[in-house]
Order: sequence, then structure tokens, then C-alpha cells
Amino acid sequence: MSKNNSFGNGIAILGSGNVATHLAKALFNSGYKIKTIYSRTLESAKELALNVKSDFTNNLVQVPDDADLYVLALKDEILEYIVQHLKVRHGIVVHTAGSISIEIFENTFNNFGVFYPLQTFTKGRNIDFSNVPLCIEANNEQTKNKLFELARSLTNQADFIDSEKRKKIHLAAVFACNFSNHMYSVALHLLSEQDVDFKKLEPLIKETVNKAINLSPDKAQTGPALRNDKKVIDEHIEMLNNYPEFQKIYKLISESIYKINKK
Amino acid sequence: MSKNNSFGNGIAILGSGNVATHLAKALFNSGYKIKTIYSRTLESAKELALNVKSDFTNNLVQVPDDADLYVLALKDEILEYIVQHLKVRHGIVVHTAGSISIEIFENTFNNFGVFYPLQTFTKGRNIDFSNVPLCIEANNEQTKNKLFELARSLTNQADFIDSEKRKKIHLAAVFACNFSNHMYSVALHLLSEQDVDFKKLEPLIKETVNKAINLSPDKAQTGPALRNDKKVIDEHIEMLNNYPEFQKIYKLISESIYKINKK
Repeated sequence: MSKNNSFGNGIAILGSGNVATHLAKALFNSGYKIKTIYSRTLESAKELALNVKSDFTNNLVQVPDDADLYVLALKDEILEYIVQHLKVRHGIVVHTAGSISIEIFENTFNNFGVFYPLQTFTKGRNIDFSNVPLCIEANNEQTKNKLFELARSLTNQADFIDSEKRKKIHLAAVFACNFSNHMYSVALHLLSEQDVDFKKLEPLIKETVNKAINLSPDKAQTGPALRNDKKVIDEHIEMLNNYPEFQKIYKLISESIYKINKK
Repeated sequence: MSKNNSFGNGIAILGSGNVATHLAKALFNSGYKIKTIYSRTLESAKELALNVKSDFTNNLVQVPDDADLYVLALKDEILEYIVQHLKVRHGIVVHTAGSISIEIFENTFNNFGVFYPLQTFTKGRNIDFSNVPLCIEANNEQTKNKLFELARSLTNQADFIDSEKRKKIHLAAVFACNFSNHMYSVALHLLSEQDVDFKKLEPLIKETVNKAINLSPDKAQTGPALRNDKKVIDEHIEMLNNYPEFQKIYKLISESIYKINKK
């Protein structure tokens, strides 16, 4: 396939978690050859390999040294071990982590970079990759061009972002994704107690998102904390007496909403 | 119009804020006659009145006493004053607040209830009311039936919810809407510093919501706090040194995510 010009000898995926799974499938579906899936757990390596018609192994020595690209979608602790022990002849090595500097690869490989998808992945859910912003970084021009070629066959939102900037974007993403999701978890727990389905909040949650995107979240804010409605706030805090954890969150976020909007 | 059987003599809207505006327009668009808009600010009463072809006033005495329905979409402090001073001959009086008990109307009116829309409203944004869950409460069967008739002409998600349950739903909504929106605000501030457009997070935020709705937020959680990835967490906390407020939020929510998922 013409797409495979720079990656004709195939791509090795190291990892079989959420990011590895989604990226391997997206690359496979875009016509790239997946050479090997490596995972510490043979069973999960096999499961992903079956989906992308590749070999699989749980033995790092069996990862071929002649792939054109090595995608390291691994937990931080394991990443350092792999960097030290992976044998690469000529291929590019990238990691997919928002919070790890490109410097982790220095003095180890010739061609390396970062391929960070700004998205939340969960196995078993399909993602339309054409919507996913990819943050690219590379240690030389040739590698950068090749990674852009790859990125642009997956999405039209590929940008060059250096490590410092990527870390800040990742931190913003933790608030916008992991922390907002935790707010939904708290709501779920409060509703379950009342036998109310979480789906009842679907129109509210979706409108909240649409307002934030279209107006900006600062302009879209509503609620008792914004109005500094002490009566409602105090009653809510009392209602959370059985949830000291949620009570602390309620107080702290209410204060922060009030402060940010007073400015 | 046939819809107006129970409300042929018109509806008085007290308030001209976000909820009053959206509800008045939705009722008007469903064919109900809006009799009067009352607001303490004549200018905003007039603005809304022009949209729903009604009279307007900032003088409570001028609110006609023969309307079939009085919708009190007011701030808590003003609500109590209005309850004490509003003259009503036969009509139903409702408020629209998530956190106020139906008891506020006792010993004052004959027919009363609550008409709480579980949605976030901001002026200038159109809302498809057919998607908005309405929580209805009433002090007698006849009033309940009339309010359901009204609610069902706006939405197919109208339910009878008593005051205690409604307060809990409102509290859940504060987490799911106001607090998640604040997480977007924090992300916005962090991204602005890097000259990155907040819209870059749109696919991430939308997938977070879709996952939460389709899988449940507990199952959908990802990120450093869930993995208890101390290295990333500590680095993030350090990156927030200039934002002590956001730093506290980061710590508290990360702890809560870890705890809720350990269970």
C-alpha cells in the first residue's frame, strides 16, 4: 500500500492496554502492517494480535529489531526498562505518554519521538481517530516528517508540540477528562441512593459540554457557587454528611468557582 | 388552542433570569398564553415580554390575580418575599428551584407545586425542551394533573419527584454540571497559558461524556490518579505551584478517584 512507504517493514506495538489497543487498531485499519504485539501478559498480547493480524510475544528478545516503527504504549515504570533493553536497528521509537519527556530516548536510539493522542481510551469502545488530536515530537527532521506522514493518515489534527507544552496539555486534559468524569461518578453515587438512573443527567451533561465549547466554560458557569447562594450551599454540605470525601470536594470547588468568577 | 384548556387565562412568569427566560419561551412556543412578565428590573421584564408577546411590570401589585399559573423563577431571597405578597385568586403557583421544598407555599396558596427543569440554562442559547427532564410536585391531585398536562406538552420526560428526592437530584446535578464545568475552566486557564485553544479538548471532553453515559463513569475512569501513578501526579502538583487553588483541587480529586475505584 502506498501509505506504507516509510513503514513498509511494519510496526511493533509494545503494550496491550487502552492506548496500545486503540492505536494498533487505528494503524491496522489505515493499512499499516503491524509486525508484533509485545506485552508482559501473553494472553493480552495474543488478543490484540488477533485483531491486527500480527505476531505476538511476551519476550522482549523476540521483538524483531528491523521494524520501521516501535510504539511504546506502556506504563512509566515499564517504559524505562524497555528503553534500556529494546534492540532497534534502524526504526523510529516513539512513546505515547502525555507526561514523559522525549529525553527518555536520548543516547539510546538514533531516531525517536513522541506520538501522544489527546483522547481517553477504554477497550471495547470504538474511537473515530480522524477526530483525535495527535501531538508529535521528534529528534530530527526526517523522523518528524515520517511521524507526520503517519499521523496524517490517522487524523487531520496532527501538530508539533514540544515536551514542555505537551505536559501542560496533558495536565489540562486530566482536569477536563479524568476530573470531570469523577464529578459524574459522585453524581452517580448520589443518584443511585435515590434509585434515579444516571442517564437522567444526560441532557444536562451534554448541554454543559456544548455550552463550555461554544461559549467558553468561564461564561457558561451557573449554579449556587457562582451566585454565592449560601443557603443552598450550606444545605448541600449538610446533605453530604455521610460522604466526607464528597463534602470536601463540594466546599473546595464551590470556593474556586466563586473566586475564579469574581476576578 | 386546545393545549390551553387548563391555562386559557394565561400564565404569569415572575423572574427574567436564565430559567424564567427559557421556560417562558418554551411555554409560548408550545402555544400557551403568557399574560405577564414580572421582574424587579423593568428593562429585563420588557426584553423577555417582547419575546413572548406579553405584558410586563416591575410592580408586584400589577401582576393580575386571575392567571391560571404563576411560575416563580426567582432567586431564593426574593422568592420568600414574593410568596408573602403575591395575590392569587384561583391559579396554581409553582417555583422552579431544585433545592427549595414545596412547603414554602403552605398556608399561602390553595393550589401549588414545583416545576423543576433538570437542565442548565444560559440566556442566548436555545434549548430543545423536549429533552429536558421536568420534576413535578403538587399539593393535590388536580394540580398535579394540570402540571403534568403542561409538562408533557413541553417534554416527554416529566416525573413526579418529591422535595427530598428533588434536592438530592439537584445536588447530583451540581456535581455533574457546575463542578464538571469548573474542571473545564481550570483546563481553559492552563491551556491559555500555552496559547492552545480550548476547542482542542472537544473530542476528549465529548468522548469522556459518551463513555460516562454508555459505560457508567466508574467504569469509564482513566488517568494517573486511577493508576496511582505517583510520578505523574507529583509532577502535575509541582506544575501547579503558581495555582494553589487548582493544586488543592488536583490533590483532593486524585485521592478521591483512587479511593472510589479501590472499593
